[in-house]
Amino acid sequence: MSFQCPLPPATEDRILLAHGGGGRLTQQLIDRIFRPAFASAFGDAQHDGAVLPMDGARLAFTTDSYVVHPLLFPGGNIGDLAVNGTVNDLAMCGARPRYLSAGFILEEGLPVATLRTVVDSMGAAARRAGVALVTGDTKVVEKGKGDGIFINTAGVGTVEAQSAVGPAAVEPGDAILLSGDVGAHGVTILSVREGLEFEGEIASDTAPLWEPVEALLQAGIEVHCLRDLTRGGLATSLNEIAATRGAAMRIREAAVPVRESVQGACEILGLDPLYVANEGRFIAIVPERDAVRALRELLRFEVCTGAVPIGTVEAGPAGLVVLESRIGGNRVLDVLSGEQLPRIC
Amino acid sequence: MSFQCPLPPATEDRILLAHGGGGRLTQQLIDRIFRPAFASAFGDAQHDGAVLPMDGARLAFTTDSYVVHPLLFPGGNIGDLAVNGTVNDLAMCGARPRYLSAGFILEEGLPVATLRTVVDSMGAAARRAGVALVTGDTKVVEKGKGDGIFINTAGVGTVEAQSAVGPAAVEPGDAILLSGDVGAHGVTILSVREGLEFEGEIASDTAPLWEPVEALLQAGIEVHCLRDLTRGGLATSLNEIAATRGAAMRIREAAVPVRESVQGACEILGLDPLYVANEGRFIAIVPERDAVRALRELLRFEVCTGAVPIGTVEAGPAGLVVLESRIGGNRVLDVLSGEQLPRIC
Repeated sequence: MSFQCPLPPATEDRILLAHGGGGRLTQQLIDRIFRPAFASAFGDAQHDGAVLPMDGARLAFTTDSYVVHPLLFPGGNIGDLAVNGTVNDLAMCGARPRYLSAGFILEEGLPVATLRTVVDSMGAAARRAGVALVTGDTKVVEKGKGDGIFINTAGVGTVEAQSAVGPAAVEPGDAILLSGDVGAHGVTILSVREGLEFEGEIASDTAPLWEPVEALLQAGIEVHCLRDLTRGGLATSLNEIAATRGAAMRIREAAVPVRESVQGACEILGLDPLYVANEGRFIAIVPERDAVRALRELLRFEVCTGAVPIGTVEAGPAGLVVLESRIGGNRVLDVLSGEQLPRIC
Repeated sequence: MSFQCPLPPATEDRILLAHGGGGRLTQQLIDRIFRPAFASAFGDAQHDGAVLPMDGARLAFTTDSYVVHPLLFPGGNIGDLAVNGTVNDLAMCGARPRYLSAGFILEEGLPVATLRTVVDSMGAAARRAGVALVTGDTKVVEKGKGDGIFINTAGVGTVEAQSAVGPAAVEPGDAILLSGDVGAHGVTILSVREGLEFEGEIASDTAPLWEPVEALLQAGIEVHCLRDLTRGGLATSLNEIAATRGAAMRIREAAVPVRESVQGACEILGLDPLYVANEGRFIAIVPERDAVRALRELLRFEVCTGAVPIGTVEAGPAGLVVLESRIGGNRVLDVLSGEQLPRIC
């Protein structure tokens, strides 16, 4: 099992699984199909959500569809994933999550008990995150035309960050903080899917992230960029920010926490934990002078127990992410070309 | 082909196509599964969208997933349907549509050319309706786990109606206005699906409806309730409003316009046009004294060419919708129990 497929030809005329992987082909689809059609209206597509003017207020608006397989897994299910994922996309805009919508596409024959489990988890996750699920929709497709449950959640929040949060605000010299150990969510999904059992408990890290973000903002820390480390993991997020900003990043491999059980599973599965999806981890890029104070704020929260500084932003070369390996060498941490793990979220 | 299936037992433990039909089983799912889990937070689930307080402003927020089959049909495709449908749900809240999100679930193997056609239509429909597509997401599922393209759109708008628009505002004596002829969208979809060709051109009526609604509001008409006539058609919408308000409605069958080609197709297909889905038709319930003026406003718009008064709200019996037939008799226009047309939108 390899975690990287060769890049398909650019003339590809059929949708591949990799078009949904969050990597280069997803970006190609956005650049070639979505952006031209939606014109400049498509706005801030590089980021996790759009920030919109609305009668004087600044509104954050985001959407995600969830197609994770299997529906239920250690640490969560598609329901709390769908709530936390969209809550986190709002949080990464520096916005307090307020309202969620929920759209369900159910496959004929789905046990109602499964739907109940998922929906109950959504309610619990919404209460935990302090958001209200206010509008919804249900469609049913014939057996064999769906896969149990697909959920779309869209979210509306109010931007509380004083200055713009996003790649454009990142400056050379900034510190890159990581909120905890990486790889647990993706490895959990793949383990269940492949019927593997690993030593130690592996469970998804799915969790809402607004509280630690709110703490950073309330402490007056000048947050330059936030990003949750979902599809494509830490490596992909770093590459996206570096490319958008036109800056470089230097990451210390030894500083990136990976739980031993996750590391072991990754070795067996042929995965690099830096590319594995997380659902409760994020990076915060802040001015070097604020780094220690920011770290102290993050460490107040259970979901950020493992928060650490992992590297620094550098002026260039533009778009380059360099990993200083444990044994002293440097390697380029590139963006994935193909599909790593389909249907991880 | 019958348009009504027997009501399945209430103890149903698997999802049926009818759970997505917008009728009694959909309501059961909302009442038994969604509402308890989402608690009071689920809010105004009887209506097309939620109206939310937001820093002093009133925000409308709505979502719909689109699973229509086939993807392309005379008069439109899943793309403009997904834009117009959500624009219309906002309009029915008395809200100016402002921003849309778009979440795609693509099936592996989908021709990229089909995606391009659909996405281009979305862009054109958004420009026509004056909304901005500002945030999006793409997932891909394996061949055989989806069906070409599913689209979710969520929408955010600003409420411009001065007083609350919805079933609760409906009063006995109110006039019920219908914006045009019914049945075209559903009959078009079914004709394509069944490979039928009918005399006369049948095409979907998909269209954005904010402009005529805006005209009603700007004319100072006291709009009590608006509803677009999608899943379950005119009959289902009337029943929902009557039940929610605890009022009765009396409709003159001869007043409801049905195009000849649609009527003919309905007879062959065994459908009742009053139950067939529309994607560019709505009812406006207004005080009797405003009815003529409201009608004049609607008739200014091409999409409302066939606007007519079709009946009156009465004090009771609560929830009853009575149809005065062409030949003088009365019959109860009931809500559908089963599934009429799966995957019509």
